[in-house]
Amino acid sequence: MSLLAINHIHYRRPLRPCVAVCIDGSDPSYLARYLSRGELPNIARFIREGFAGTAQSSVPAFTCPNNMSIITGVPVSQHGISGNYYLDTKTWEPVVMTDPKLLMAQTILSGFADAGARVVSITAKDKLRRQLQKDLDLTRGNISFSAEFADQCTIEENGIDNVLTYVGEPQPGKYSEALSLFVLQAGLKLLRDRRPEVMYLSLTDFVQHRYAPEAPEALSFYQKLDALFGLLAAEDINLGLTADHGMSDMSLDNLEPHVLWLQDILDAKFGKGEAVVICPITDAFVAHHGALGGLVRVWSKGSISTAQLIETISALPEVDIAVDKERAVRMFELYPDREADVVVLAKEHVCIGTSRSKHDLKGLSGHRLRSHGSLHEMEVPFILNRPLNDAYKERAAAEALRNRHIFDYLINGTN
Amino acid sequence: MSLLAINHIHYRRPLRPCVAVCIDGSDPSYLARYLSRGELPNIARFIREGFAGTAQSSVPAFTCPNNMSIITGVPVSQHGISGNYYLDTKTWEPVVMTDPKLLMAQTILSGFADAGARVVSITAKDKLRRQLQKDLDLTRGNISFSAEFADQCTIEENGIDNVLTYVGEPQPGKYSEALSLFVLQAGLKLLRDRRPEVMYLSLTDFVQHRYAPEAPEALSFYQKLDALFGLLAAEDINLGLTADHGMSDMSLDNLEPHVLWLQDILDAKFGKGEAVVICPITDAFVAHHGALGGLVRVWSKGSISTAQLIETISALPEVDIAVDKERAVRMFELYPDREADVVVLAKEHVCIGTSRSKHDLKGLSGHRLRSHGSLHEMEVPFILNRPLNDAYKERAAAEALRNRHIFDYLINGTN
Repeated sequence: MSLLAINHIHYRRPLRPCVAVCIDGSDPSYLARYLSRGELPNIARFIREGFAGTAQSSVPAFTCPNNMSIITGVPVSQHGISGNYYLDTKTWEPVVMTDPKLLMAQTILSGFADAGARVVSITAKDKLRRQLQKDLDLTRGNISFSAEFADQCTIEENGIDNVLTYVGEPQPGKYSEALSLFVLQAGLKLLRDRRPEVMYLSLTDFVQHRYAPEAPEALSFYQKLDALFGLLAAEDINLGLTADHGMSDMSLDNLEPHVLWLQDILDAKFGKGEAVVICPITDAFVAHHGALGGLVRVWSKGSISTAQLIETISALPEVDIAVDKERAVRMFELYPDREADVVVLAKEHVCIGTSRSKHDLKGLSGHRLRSHGSLHEMEVPFILNRPLNDAYKERAAAEALRNRHIFDYLINGTN
Repeated sequence: MSLLAINHIHYRRPLRPCVAVCIDGSDPSYLARYLSRGELPNIARFIREGFAGTAQSSVPAFTCPNNMSIITGVPVSQHGISGNYYLDTKTWEPVVMTDPKLLMAQTILSGFADAGARVVSITAKDKLRRQLQKDLDLTRGNISFSAEFADQCTIEENGIDNVLTYVGEPQPGKYSEALSLFVLQAGLKLLRDRRPEVMYLSLTDFVQHRYAPEAPEALSFYQKLDALFGLLAAEDINLGLTADHGMSDMSLDNLEPHVLWLQDILDAKFGKGEAVVICPITDAFVAHHGALGGLVRVWSKGSISTAQLIETISALPEVDIAVDKERAVRMFELYPDREADVVVLAKEHVCIGTSRSKHDLKGLSGHRLRSHGSLHEMEVPFILNRPLNDAYKERAAAEALRNRHIFDYLINGTN
C-alpha cells in the first residue's frame, strides 16, 4: 500500500502507530484553566513539542455526528449521521441513528484494515461501536469494543474476549469517569502488545456534563487522562487529541436548567402534535443531561408551513437562529434526506427540550445542567504530540482546522 | 514600562520591532494555491520556522471593522466601528464611520506611543488613517500616513513629509497593486531608518476583488508581497501576517454579479422608503466592488415591525440568515448603539445591494464580482515569522485564533 484513498482523502502508510483520542465534551475551557496552572504536564509537553490549535466540530455539536466525522474524515453531508435520532416522516417515528446501515461513508478503520493494517477501536459508549466497526474484518487481529460492555466481548463480535482480565480492571460503571479511563487503559495495553497501526479511542463526557472546569472532580479526571496520555505517547506513537464538542453551563441562578420547551410552545400555537420536535442529543445515556441540548429539529405534519414555524421559533428569545432544511444543509454541511423542516439553534447557555413532561431531569440530582449542541459548543482542542511536517504546516495556514482532520494530520502530517 | 494595559489586554515591551501586516482581502485560497506550488518562499519559511494557522475575522467581514479590531485588539462590541456607514435614525442619514470620535477603544499604537515607544502606521486607503492614528502624538517621532495621499503628507498631520522622495517611488494609483506595495516599501524604509517598536501596515484588496487565485495578476501581486515580507523579516523583527476578511466570487455564469436587490424588494412590499437598507461596505473606493457585499443592515422607519422584516427577508433564497439587533449583537459581538433593526447575511457567492439603480457597476468593467462580508469570508491567515513561546502555544490550544490577536501574539507570544 502506498497511498490509500478513503472517502477521497489520501492516507499514507503510518510511520508508527497513529492513535486519535476523542475527549468527549472537552470544552477548551478545561485545558485553558489547567494548562495555565501547569496541571497537565504531558499535554503541555505535546503542545510545546508538537502541534496545538483549536478546531471546529461538525454541526450539530453532538457525540454521534462528530465521532462519525472523525472516523470517516468527512462532514455530516457525506456520512449521514446527523444526530442520535431522526424522524421518519413515513411513520412519524423517531429512528435511532446508530445502525451501521445509516453510515454512508467508509470508516478510516475499515479502509486501513482492508489494506492490511491492524486497527483498534475502543469507545466508552456502546452506541458508537457498531458504526465505528462498520465493514471492519474482525477475524484478522482487528479489535472493536466498548468499555460499557467490556465484560461481554466476544471474538466474533469484537475481535477480543475476556477484556476485563486482559486489561486488569473491573467493569466500569456506565456513569463514571472510569468508563473513559478504561478506554485509555485498554488502548495502552493493546498498543504495547499488538502495536496496531491505527487506533481510535473515544471517551465519554460524563465528567464534563457534571463538572465545570473549576470543580476538583474535573481537574482530577483530566490529570488521570494526562497521565494516561503520557504513557501512550511513551510508546513511540503519533498521538492526536481532539473532542467531539464543547460544553456550556445551561442553568439559571437557582440551579434549574434554562430550558425552552419548544414542543409545548408549538402545541399551544398550532395544535397538539402538528409539529414534532426531536432532540437529537437523546440516547440511552441521558441521566447526565436529561436529553437537553442546544440544537433541535422540527418537522411539520403538514398543516403548518415552514415559514410559520420559522416565524414563531425565530421570535423566541432563547433561540439564536431557526433555519429551513435547505439553509441548514448548505450552511452546516448537513445530510438532506435526514434533515428536518426547521433546524433550531439555541442561544448560549440555554437548552431546548420537547415537552416539560417528557424530560426526566432527576438524573441531574441537584447539579447544574451542562450541555452542548449549539454554535457555542463548536470549538474543540486539536493537539498532536509531534510537530507538523512542512506540508501540513502550510495546510494549517490555508484551511481552518476541524476535528475531522485529526487522522489526516496524524497519519500524513508528521514526520 | 513593564506591562502595558490597552483595552484590558496586557502587552510587554517588544523584544524587537513588532510589525503586523493586514493583507486586505487575503482569502486563504490565495496562500493555499501558491504555497502548494512553492511560489511564496518567504511566507513558506515563516510557516516552517514560525507559527501558522487560520483565524476568524470580526463580523462584518469588512475592512474598517476588522482594521479597528486588529489595531485595538478588541471586538466591534468594544470599539464600535461596525462598518463604513451606519444610519443615524434621528436624521435618517447614513453616517460615515471613519471619524476618530466614533472609535470607542484605544489603539495599540497610541497606547505604546504614550508609554514612550516609537510607532508607525501606514495604510493604503486614507479612510482608515485618522482612526488608526487616534490620540497618537505625532510630535515625537511617531508616524501615520496613507499611501493614497502619500504626496500630501505633512509633519503636523502625519509626522513625516516628502514621503515620495523618502520612499523613492512615485505616487501610486488609487486602484492599483502599487498602493499596497508602497505601504510595504515605506514600512521597510522606516523600519531600517528608525526601528519603531510597533508598526502596522494595512494594504488594500484591489487585487483580490479583481483577480481570483488562478489569475496570473494575483500570483504576481502575492510574489511581490512575499519578496517585501522577506526584506522586512530580514530586519530582525517579529513579523505577523493576517487579513481583515476573505473574498468570494459573487458572479453568475454570465459574468453578471449575483445580487439580491433588497431595497427594491422591501420598497415593493412595504412601500418606498419605509425600510432603509444600508450596505456597510460602501465607501469612497467602490469601483472594484460596486458597493456590493455579503452583509447589509436594515432599519424600519416605524411602519414595519422587525418581525415583518425578518419574515420577509429570511424567506429570500439569497439570504443565509436575517436576525434582529439583539441577536446580531450577542451572536457576532456587535455594537448595539449603531446596529440596525435587522442584520442580513447573504449565502455564499451572493451579494446584497440596495436598489438596482443606486449601484454603479461600471467599475467592474466586465470582470466577475468578487466581494466579502458574509459568514463565508471570515477565515483569514494568521502567520508569524517566529515560533510561539510556550505560553502562547498553550493559548493557541485553548482559544480560537482571531485576527484581532495578531499584535498580542507578536508582542507577547514569541521569544
